[in-house]
Amino acid sequence: MTVDLLGTLRLPDEVRMLDADQLEQLCAQIRLALVRYGKQHGGHIGSNLGLVEACVALHAVFDSPRDRIVFDVSHQSYVHKILTGRASAFVNEEQFDTVTGFTNPQESEHDQFVLGHTGTAVSLATGLAKMRDMNHDDYHVVAVLGDGALSSAVAFEGLNNAAEQGGNIIIVFNDNEMSIAENHGGMYGQLARLRESQGTAQPNLFEALGLDYRYVEHGNDVHAMIQALREVKDTDHPVVLHIHTCKGLGLDQQDAHYGVLEGRCEANHWQNPLAQANAPLGSRKTYGRAIMAMLEQRFDEEPGLMVISPATPGSNGITREFRERAGAHYIDTGITEEHAVTFASGVGKAGGRPVVATSATFFQRTVDQLQQEVALNHTPVTLLEFSGGLSDADNTHSGAFDIAMFGNIPGLLGLAPTSGEQLLAMVDWATSQANDGPVMIRVPGPQILDADRAQGLFVSGEPEREGLQYARNHTLGRDGDEAGAEITIVPQDFRTSRVIKQGRGVAVLALGNTMPLGRDVVDMLAADDANAIEATLVDPVMFSDVDETLLRQLAHDHSVVVTLEDAQLEGGWGAKVTRFYEQLAEQTGTQVRVVNVGAEREFTDRVALCELNERYGLTTPAIVHTIRNVAMQTGLQAC
Amino acid sequence: MTVDLLGTLRLPDEVRMLDADQLEQLCAQIRLALVRYGKQHGGHIGSNLGLVEACVALHAVFDSPRDRIVFDVSHQSYVHKILTGRASAFVNEEQFDTVTGFTNPQESEHDQFVLGHTGTAVSLATGLAKMRDMNHDDYHVVAVLGDGALSSAVAFEGLNNAAEQGGNIIIVFNDNEMSIAENHGGMYGQLARLRESQGTAQPNLFEALGLDYRYVEHGNDVHAMIQALREVKDTDHPVVLHIHTCKGLGLDQQDAHYGVLEGRCEANHWQNPLAQANAPLGSRKTYGRAIMAMLEQRFDEEPGLMVISPATPGSNGITREFRERAGAHYIDTGITEEHAVTFASGVGKAGGRPVVATSATFFQRTVDQLQQEVALNHTPVTLLEFSGGLSDADNTHSGAFDIAMFGNIPGLLGLAPTSGEQLLAMVDWATSQANDGPVMIRVPGPQILDADRAQGLFVSGEPEREGLQYARNHTLGRDGDEAGAEITIVPQDFRTSRVIKQGRGVAVLALGNTMPLGRDVVDMLAADDANAIEATLVDPVMFSDVDETLLRQLAHDHSVVVTLEDAQLEGGWGAKVTRFYEQLAEQTGTQVRVVNVGAEREFTDRVALCELNERYGLTTPAIVHTIRNVAMQTGLQAC
Repeated sequence: MTVDLLGTLRLPDEVRMLDADQLEQLCAQIRLALVRYGKQHGGHIGSNLGLVEACVALHAVFDSPRDRIVFDVSHQSYVHKILTGRASAFVNEEQFDTVTGFTNPQESEHDQFVLGHTGTAVSLATGLAKMRDMNHDDYHVVAVLGDGALSSAVAFEGLNNAAEQGGNIIIVFNDNEMSIAENHGGMYGQLARLRESQGTAQPNLFEALGLDYRYVEHGNDVHAMIQALREVKDTDHPVVLHIHTCKGLGLDQQDAHYGVLEGRCEANHWQNPLAQANAPLGSRKTYGRAIMAMLEQRFDEEPGLMVISPATPGSNGITREFRERAGAHYIDTGITEEHAVTFASGVGKAGGRPVVATSATFFQRTVDQLQQEVALNHTPVTLLEFSGGLSDADNTHSGAFDIAMFGNIPGLLGLAPTSGEQLLAMVDWATSQANDGPVMIRVPGPQILDADRAQGLFVSGEPEREGLQYARNHTLGRDGDEAGAEITIVPQDFRTSRVIKQGRGVAVLALGNTMPLGRDVVDMLAADDANAIEATLVDPVMFSDVDETLLRQLAHDHSVVVTLEDAQLEGGWGAKVTRFYEQLAEQTGTQVRVVNVGAEREFTDRVALCELNERYGLTTPAIVHTIRNVAMQTGLQAC
Repeated sequence: MTVDLLGTLRLPDEVRMLDADQLEQLCAQIRLALVRYGKQHGGHIGSNLGLVEACVALHAVFDSPRDRIVFDVSHQSYVHKILTGRASAFVNEEQFDTVTGFTNPQESEHDQFVLGHTGTAVSLATGLAKMRDMNHDDYHVVAVLGDGALSSAVAFEGLNNAAEQGGNIIIVFNDNEMSIAENHGGMYGQLARLRESQGTAQPNLFEALGLDYRYVEHGNDVHAMIQALREVKDTDHPVVLHIHTCKGLGLDQQDAHYGVLEGRCEANHWQNPLAQANAPLGSRKTYGRAIMAMLEQRFDEEPGLMVISPATPGSNGITREFRERAGAHYIDTGITEEHAVTFASGVGKAGGRPVVATSATFFQRTVDQLQQEVALNHTPVTLLEFSGGLSDADNTHSGAFDIAMFGNIPGLLGLAPTSGEQLLAMVDWATSQANDGPVMIRVPGPQILDADRAQGLFVSGEPEREGLQYARNHTLGRDGDEAGAEITIVPQDFRTSRVIKQGRGVAVLALGNTMPLGRDVVDMLAADDANAIEATLVDPVMFSDVDETLLRQLAHDHSVVVTLEDAQLEGGWGAKVTRFYEQLAEQTGTQVRVVNVGAEREFTDRVALCELNERYGLTTPAIVHTIRNVAMQTGLQAC
């Protein structure tokens, strides 16, 4: 009879008491639970399924939390969570959202860090081990990282330094032959030869870094894993345990309870498969796919036009079909944001027009390269920034910091489109020969997509159509390409703001995603018969700069200027408007009251967007209230 | 008879016409010129001396600028500059400053990029090569990088991706057995074995990354180098040419003209050896050495107190003697800023108190890790930021962006001390058990050191004395350490600003290095008998936050608040003060005029600090003028 091991396990100690059969049963039960969870809730299921036996073995051999297990990126820590008192969060639907998708010390003492970006586990583990050794403590330190992480810069720095430091550090290297999409880079051929030779082939990358090395072919055999971990457990120097696992193992199994679910269980990304089965495409995929379709039209004529993705194509609308058609115009660099941006600068320097596409949270990793290799060298690199701005993201993937991080770099033009059409025009211009410098374009969020759809745009499940349409309607000249095409339309310059509605007294400057909110505010200000304010509405266009000419004009007949942005205010865009009027007052005595509305400087973790908007006053009633209040203070409106 | 080849060479083409003897003579002449230049002017002489033959060979074999040579970090491009029409800038004293210390496309078409940060050359070269291949062009692409660069994250990403891309890319890997201080990391043992075996030993790191590999033992033999480069020149895939050179070769030779100069020719860092022979220590070394001396007193009692330097100890006052005495309390991680910061977070998580010491411009590389691994995880890491703020630095090493980059990260406390004593107190507090979160401390610049010295502090060439004195005078408790020392002084909390002088009407908030300027301004405002303004002077203490309590108090009897900062205003600290008063006005109607004084958002290249101060209005007359102007506008002062 099968015992419900999953339902009774409370502490990882109990794993150590199980016999061989029970260990196998436990793995099987976890695997089934993960598949169910994935189909109902979604999540990084594939990588977790591959690590079931390794995690059970880790808890069977090591004594967490005394021993420290650090999961790289940490989205593959579900089994660890299940084994450390959090099984119900993966088994009981009503508790699904009681744990995060990443390790989190606030959830459990078995979790060392909150981690969501790739490649830092070895460095963190090396730090833990250093402190242990300085204190003459004797606990064990384990870092668990996947093959995708190995291409990531900081992982390599960590491995090289762990080797130099010495002491007990066990690095479990989970090789499932693929990272998020596929692995990219010259090392993966050598890793394949290591697998083929049972870990004996040279050159061995880990040994080249001065690390001891062991290979485990059967990484999904819990007994083999326990045996291997026991052998290295008490090592006096860092050891890499290269384990060969099967990503998504068991994903296709039947579920006695649910049968074959219709919801697709994506192996990698958060989604809600059942609930979203028939939902329309989100803003990232919609706009990403439209952009790719537009660019694709130009590939034949422009050898230097290329799309670069640091291992995150799918979620940004860079579909497999597009990648295949794009051929050499598409480059997946692996999880290497720094290289991707630097490489793009090289392409741009040589006359190309590269487009680097990834999330705001991953562009964070390239601040130095954006500043030095790109902005200082003024190369025509287009940075397509997805998921910028406020959202319900977890605390490791927030886009709320983008304007503060990227909007203050000298020479980097940041654009925040307020419609899909404008987005396409911006990408078209930034990638044309008419532009010679770096441009970051913030791909709009769901607010803008909703507005587009209300106008009948981007409604279908095939956003490629709009991209194609754009390409057909616009023949922006590509001077400098070999075909020598004529310029038929003078490329629009995106260094000016657009007045959407001309009013007086109050001006609302609604950046990017806040444009629908800005429209609402202006409408409501005008709607109050007794105290109607006919406010001006402006699309600022740029998040990195202000349009000084327009701001100076506004000062003539506006005494209140309100800036809206769905990002952190400190270091943000509104502050630039404030500064402009501060200087204007200094120079001319003209006083304009500026009110900045936006986000506080804080980490937020999976807080609903509407709740964040309430918290930061990014709602129509709150903004109207503030405007009326300030209008009274400035005498613009009677009490 | 020896011909003055150096004096007649104008174009690199001419190198290709020289015979064997002439090539050797050219190398000898270049070497002598470099030594002279180094002794008179200072510079990265050591690495350039090691690369004389390699650079001559590169220009003898390749056809620059058609072929593209990318120098990593690019401070080892002097010989390249000499060979590409810029010899006089290294030979004629009056022309010494006509070229920068780095490659620069504005200087010569032979220079591909402006580069000053380590490890990006391979990615850039891979980008150039990609574009060449897309265009079906046939020029060659060469990346030249040193052994120190290899530990740097992005270099590894580049190597891995170059291998995947394929095509003609020649990577000259200059192995002189040392980077800036020493090489650190497990790979360096394997590199030594490669040298010993003439490149035949396994594991071979480059081959492990999928790259072809050749070894040249005599990297300082120009003929061997030409031969080796010719062999790989037309490769159809990336090749690493590992060349073994001698850093600083010829440094000790006699100079017929100058004899044995007394000025030391430092192998690595910019300095002015003759002029600065008897100059007092600068602010970096002075304050760095004082801090290290203070921390050292605590090492015996605090196993978790440690200093981490990503390969930049010397210029930050972390002397060789200190490093030796510190033992396991000092860690050089190699050129790996990302690892250094992440590692520190691990140490802090395990209870330690790590101090990461490097320049502002290198902390840029860790924005992601500072935000995710450090701030989000709230680990007690102290970040000792050197060279923050305005300076005459070149455009790749400016500290003017520090506040915008680090002052807006949630949960990261940034401190800007206004004296050496305060600096020591801040480091003492940040590294104590009384502090549990990340703190970045901006080491003061020459302005503050001058002010300290005017008071008789930090005057001697042995700043260690002040550090020692501080440690003796303060017995800040180290609760939690094993010795269980008592807390005898409640640790000061640095989350409040300090009122230096109480006045009314106008308040001057002088951040960090601007405090001497702030004092001057306040003095001059008071000095005008007819229109004396007794202004308040405040030391804000924090560059990441404002002291809201104090700002609210100031609003009672001040109508003008002036913020001073020697850093970029956009994204900066003054904007936070502006925002506070904007909100106060909104809530209470109390109007305070705020004036932010600081730097524009721009790159500057070796512009004298006094010129920058003039440009940005960071001078006493300019600020006094502005204050009197605004005071009139606000009615605080009669016209």
